[in-house]
Amino acid sequence: MADVYLALLHHPVYDKHGAVVTTAVTNLDVHDIARAARTFGVRAYWVCTPVATLRRLVDRIIRHWEVGPGAAYNPNRREALAVVRQAPALDDVIAEIDRETGQLPYLVATSAREGPARLRYDALRARLASGGPPVLLVFGTGWGLTDEVVARCDAVLEPVRGVTAYNHLSVRSAAAIILDRLRNGR
Amino acid sequence: MADVYLALLHHPVYDKHGAVVTTAVTNLDVHDIARAARTFGVRAYWVCTPVATLRRLVDRIIRHWEVGPGAAYNPNRREALAVVRQAPALDDVIAEIDRETGQLPYLVATSAREGPARLRYDALRARLASGGPPVLLVFGTGWGLTDEVVARCDAVLEPVRGVTAYNHLSVRSAAAIILDRLRNGR
Repeated sequence: MADVYLALLHHPVYDKHGAVVTTAVTNLDVHDIARAARTFGVRAYWVCTPVATLRRLVDRIIRHWEVGPGAAYNPNRREALAVVRQAPALDDVIAEIDRETGQLPYLVATSAREGPARLRYDALRARLASGGPPVLLVFGTGWGLTDEVVARCDAVLEPVRGVTAYNHLSVRSAAAIILDRLRNGR
Repeated sequence: MADVYLALLHHPVYDKHGAVVTTAVTNLDVHDIARAARTFGVRAYWVCTPVATLRRLVDRIIRHWEVGPGAAYNPNRREALAVVRQAPALDDVIAEIDRETGQLPYLVATSAREGPARLRYDALRARLASGGPPVLLVFGTGWGLTDEVVARCDAVLEPVRGVTAYNHLSVRSAAAIILDRLRNGR
């Protein structure tokens, strides 16, 4: 089984007007996605922001739960946050995976938008099952990954569809559902 | 297809020591679960707390996005929050569903814990597909629904399992995954 990694980009992403922006890091994006990553066996989850101050904030959050008051209060959080890493940008994540595994990851962009040649869940599950290079799932905050980021990925995963036309899940919910689909089949 | 409703209880729930407590309402529980509910066609999502001040807080959050500055800033939120209702307790939710549909809902408790006779997802999907009374999914905050609440439900849904022993998803992630499983099959 190939390893799965996850990255959450806060830049470059679109805002609702289509401008390329840097979003702020949200505390619950760190926690919720770490807990889902831990549950579904993700090897590492990178919170990516070019803003050094926000990386320091995430460091403080993690330290609070790892060695601060939170460690005694709720050890489960420490266990989840152990999968969290930080990087300024996607390139740093790719380089780190390459350094650790000796392989460049297969980059899978996620998007709420439909488009041509979307990678199906069963196809990605088959790829994971066959071994091979690690897979890096790339999530965007704000209004999603820029076209430039999507274009450099090897594939774009099909969006999570519900039963209505509404397709505005939080990135926390989308990540949880996608990991469940990849690990528990469908 | 039977209608699905959802309730998130802030009382009575356990804290980590097993004491019965009332948890605070979390802003993102309102938003994330509303967005997932809207995506997966849930008819209504009740945020339940006996604390009137917190119900007023939730009213303010909803008004901000419905008619306040948020309505222009992000109409998608308004659309999601339109499914949100409030109630002091589970009994009020049951009474409201009965009043609106003329039927008492089939109560399905959710839990991260294993236990005897858990309701499988395929069985619940079959029940939904066959029509019949509306189904109310009951979620707990904190460390989960009390035994008393679970005992009065008609069934307890099997927990969301990952690929590790870690089973501490946020209620936001668990609700998203469960709705996806019920609506998109597995």
